Amino acid sequence: MSAQRADARRNYERILAVAMEEVAAHGADASLEQIARTAGVGSATVRRHFPGRRALLEAVFRERIATLCARAGELAEVADARAALLEWLGAFTAYAASARGMAAALAQEGLLDPEDGGDNACSAQLIQACGPLLRRAQRAGAVAPGVAVSDLLTLITGIALATERHPDAAAEAERLLGLVVAGVSPSVVTARG
Amino acid sequence: MSAQRADARRNYERILAVAMEEVAAHGADASLEQIARTAGVGSATVRRHFPGRRALLEAVFRERIATLCARAGELAEVADARAALLEWLGAFTAYAASARGMAAALAQEGLLDPEDGGDNACSAQLIQACGPLLRRAQRAGAVAPGVAVSDLLTLITGIALATERHPDAAAEAERLLGLVVAGVSPSVVTARG
Repeated sequence: MSAQRADARRNYERILAVAMEEVAAHGADASLEQIARTAGVGSATVRRHFPGRRALLEAVFRERIATLCARAGELAEVADARAALLEWLGAFTAYAASARGMAAALAQEGLLDPEDGGDNACSAQLIQACGPLLRRAQRAGAVAPGVAVSDLLTLITGIALATERHPDAAAEAERLLGLVVAGVSPSVVTARG
Repeated sequence: MSAQRADARRNYERILAVAMEEVAAHGADASLEQIARTAGVGSATVRRHFPGRRALLEAVFRERIATLCARAGELAEVADARAALLEWLGAFTAYAASARGMAAALAQEGLLDPEDGGDNACSAQLIQACGPLLRRAQRAGAVAPGVAVSDLLTLITGIALATERHPDAAAEAERLLGLVVAGVSPSVVTARG
């Protein structure tokens, strides 16, 4: 690696480390100018590495998203299709509720299915990870056929956003996910315990 | 009314009208300084009428909230308890999805039940309006006993926040509310409430 490239790499790592702290403290609206100042670089250097806020947020959440995608791969092997889907949705809910700024970033970018024109790297990865789990649960009759992956991710993103100020956000988000899974008032009342 | 009081009243009306436009354009983060400038008054005058952002947002959404509360009163007379609750939840969803900034304001303030220490005027009014409709639906066996009004309002607030960038936000929010009501995977009866 040339000295110039090693230098660029160090700048990238430093900016990303500062960005992670700023986003954890201030969410998706973290100031790019503040990130440049704290990292000791100019705004132009930040923009060279991260062409915009979206690229920066994608980099900040990349590792967490990768962990969630790996978990989806593992859960594809679990025999109970419904349990596998619900466990993954629970894991995503826990991440979205605890990783400040992730839900806001996803909501700002729009959680469209890639097939419907969604092109955001983070949400596209999540949708691709959850897709097989959802389709398997739908084949097992545990989820209505009309439910899309983007519906589930949008609902969970919303739960994370609406519980952000809750003193125990992760537990509250998990509880509300349970309500969404069970239904507030399923029309087949006889199916109720 | 003294000339002084009439003057204060005109200032209040002018600031509120400008605030409604700014909040519609920029959501709950609308700039108080910009509101003061556009209204042609000083920041101190804005603060005298609206001690903080929260007071201003409450005033901006007061009429819409009052309409929703009145609707709840009418629906209490509808024979079908479940239909009455669902219609009100649909009306709240439509408002929250279309009134830019309302969902963010509610989420920022926290949607706590007044009995749990919630003291926000807007959310307290909504909770008091929806409470009788929910309890009636619970008595009719249409909603599990453990579901709280604040759960329903938080879920809908989340849906409104997560669909804010959707090209047809109101329709999308209504569709997702339907999923929450029916349940994503209610077929296996899990522990409810």
